[in-house]
Amino acid sequence: MSDLKQQALDFHEFPVAGKISVVPTKSLATQQDLALAYSPGVAEPCLAIEKNPQDAYRYTAKGNLVAVISNGTAVLGLGNIGALASKPVMEGKGVLFNKFAGIDVFDIEINETDPDKLVDIIAALEPTFGGINLEDIKAPECFYIEQKLRERCKIPVFHDDQHGTAIITAAAALNGLRLVGKNIADVTLVCSGAGAAAIACVNLLVELGLKRENVTMCDSKGVIYQTREDRDRMDESKVAYAIPDNGQRVLADAVVGKDIFLGLSSANVLTPKMLKTMADKPLVFAMANPNPEITPPVAKAARDDVIIGTGRSDYPNQINNVLCFPFIFRGALDCGATTINEAMKLATVHAIADLATEAVTDEVRAAYGNADLQFGADYLIPTPFDPRLISRIAPAVAKAAAESGVATRPIADLAAYAAKLAEK
Amino acid sequence: MSDLKQQALDFHEFPVAGKISVVPTKSLATQQDLALAYSPGVAEPCLAIEKNPQDAYRYTAKGNLVAVISNGTAVLGLGNIGALASKPVMEGKGVLFNKFAGIDVFDIEINETDPDKLVDIIAALEPTFGGINLEDIKAPECFYIEQKLRERCKIPVFHDDQHGTAIITAAAALNGLRLVGKNIADVTLVCSGAGAAAIACVNLLVELGLKRENVTMCDSKGVIYQTREDRDRMDESKVAYAIPDNGQRVLADAVVGKDIFLGLSSANVLTPKMLKTMADKPLVFAMANPNPEITPPVAKAARDDVIIGTGRSDYPNQINNVLCFPFIFRGALDCGATTINEAMKLATVHAIADLATEAVTDEVRAAYGNADLQFGADYLIPTPFDPRLISRIAPAVAKAAAESGVATRPIADLAAYAAKLAEK
Repeated sequence: MSDLKQQALDFHEFPVAGKISVVPTKSLATQQDLALAYSPGVAEPCLAIEKNPQDAYRYTAKGNLVAVISNGTAVLGLGNIGALASKPVMEGKGVLFNKFAGIDVFDIEINETDPDKLVDIIAALEPTFGGINLEDIKAPECFYIEQKLRERCKIPVFHDDQHGTAIITAAAALNGLRLVGKNIADVTLVCSGAGAAAIACVNLLVELGLKRENVTMCDSKGVIYQTREDRDRMDESKVAYAIPDNGQRVLADAVVGKDIFLGLSSANVLTPKMLKTMADKPLVFAMANPNPEITPPVAKAARDDVIIGTGRSDYPNQINNVLCFPFIFRGALDCGATTINEAMKLATVHAIADLATEAVTDEVRAAYGNADLQFGADYLIPTPFDPRLISRIAPAVAKAAAESGVATRPIADLAAYAAKLAEK
Repeated sequence: MSDLKQQALDFHEFPVAGKISVVPTKSLATQQDLALAYSPGVAEPCLAIEKNPQDAYRYTAKGNLVAVISNGTAVLGLGNIGALASKPVMEGKGVLFNKFAGIDVFDIEINETDPDKLVDIIAALEPTFGGINLEDIKAPECFYIEQKLRERCKIPVFHDDQHGTAIITAAAALNGLRLVGKNIADVTLVCSGAGAAAIACVNLLVELGLKRENVTMCDSKGVIYQTREDRDRMDESKVAYAIPDNGQRVLADAVVGKDIFLGLSSANVLTPKMLKTMADKPLVFAMANPNPEITPPVAKAARDDVIIGTGRSDYPNQINNVLCFPFIFRGALDCGATTINEAMKLATVHAIADLATEAVTDEVRAAYGNADLQFGADYLIPTPFDPRLISRIAPAVAKAAAESGVATRPIADLAAYAAKLAEK
């Protein structure tokens, strides 16, 4: 076993097993404290909540508590390893919520693969939580599960693998297009991969102005076209992007002349030869993990006008969901949003994209270890350690929630809210 | 609203809503920490657990994590107030687990009243937790729910309202009988109340030697006898204690000549007149909350040979579940018990009873505010703040688990384990 692997196991095992602990937020030193925290005093908040369910947000941890929920069917790149084996990932996601946005997370691993039964279980847990983050649930079931839960729950339900990835990619794409001077309404895109994240990315780019007819999607069998023989067995989310048969069959055909390459597939599928056939100043988002569809050094060796982002922290432009999920939930929880809707997602895209165009602070430069960091081809989106993310995204999300009518506790003074977040 | 009620609400609301927070146990200061805690390092513990499910206890928080689960159908004395309104109680139970035994708790409130569906939901959550504490679920459904979960889960499932109460009551009863010089095999008992806790108490006393035929149970309609007209509609756990018709119809009939009165019913149902008809040196456990079946001052005014315990902290002999649940779970978790069986419950009863007969430490006297505290009629069981509870109960539970073959990680050196617990 490599040192890094053993180090990861040791990190998880010592000095205590796992990565989280639950602690009281109130003093419990005296008999009097216990009488308030438990019997008989606890009856008062119970009765208040029974009378007015919104009081749960005053008297319990619900308002700052998110469930990170998985059934372990599509964990990282490991596949269907089961609910129990997914627990380290879900705990890890929880600590990221906590570290970046001060959100409490219960990681919930559920032994259930039937979509309808899983929906019933998660919906029944709604009283416990202020929000639900679905994680590592396999496609296409994840679409149905998220949709049904969004219909049934009055708290935000967000499948980060789809929407988190889509939001960061969209922010990077908007800034990439800004740099190369292209208009999203005019560009063409080829997508390698047609799973949950890929579909969500393309959907969001379409909302931002990309024309459906300018999209070509490829799955493991090649270009998805309307008369392909397996079309009847395809998930409807894929079918929606099937193009008229234009004779293109494989990725190498489809990539020719395209402005954007979106990769959510597997290592090295975009060859230098293929990259050279793309349009001028192409944008490449090669997000296969851990090995991208093409690496930045290989891409830049093939052509020097390419702008490239990957999922890796050791290259520039890391498309990292941690730029989004802690902060979109922070904003949604703080304004009592009943959902995370398209307006809130689009607000997040623009907040992230805009932040990257601002002057980089010395603090960020130091954290990133790059003294020359500034908006450009190698800095399309902020870094995960940019402390301004929370105070830019959460207020934008809260504002969008209020304007779209889904905030039950709208934040009156958004500037003060942003200032308070910036302090923390 | 009284000052105490407002104080309880304020306690829950300020400075942060609720009583719990989830915190990381590992440093997350650097990019390297994140690489170990999350992608890519986290894949290693996932793969290890997929290969060997027991590794979940090494690499995740599962082994110290208990679910406190309710559907809100029988909360405190408030009745069916629903899952959401039960949340303050479940959070409170969680902080007691934490304060007394260092156990992490996720409070889980579930919107489901159908017993089979509730069982399915809770069973599906098994990968998340090391143990399950059921709470405030109404009778008779609670019997069925606990039984089915015990059959389906390979982690301890414990309905504290039943078994916690029963364990403390049994410990107090054993010590009371010791004081008055009666043998459990010879005594008679009348029970006022026939709900979940009452049945569990009587069941446990029967396991300890009380004869079934020496028990008379009364519910809200009076004495439960075999030919009572509503017998067919009674839950089977109640029917098991129905006596042959002896002409007794009401509690006042049944209490005559009895050695033990067990009250899990309602305020003031045991009158001084009735108490006077009991046998010599009667034991009275009047556990209705907040107002007992008879108060200690009233009982002692009626006859001076009575020994009495209640559920209240402002009288001696408080029958308080916190004497049991943190420590029985501590022992069960630490030896990897797959269940909490009768042997483990009985070990807890004896550990609690025996501790009360030991010399009281100055620390306990000070915490209890009673300089004369010693084993006797006003000190049948230890106080909740006795620091010796954890180091007496948890090792006894772990020992019983190992001897009864349900410990997957038996503790080799119980003395060292007890010493380590005593240090904390």
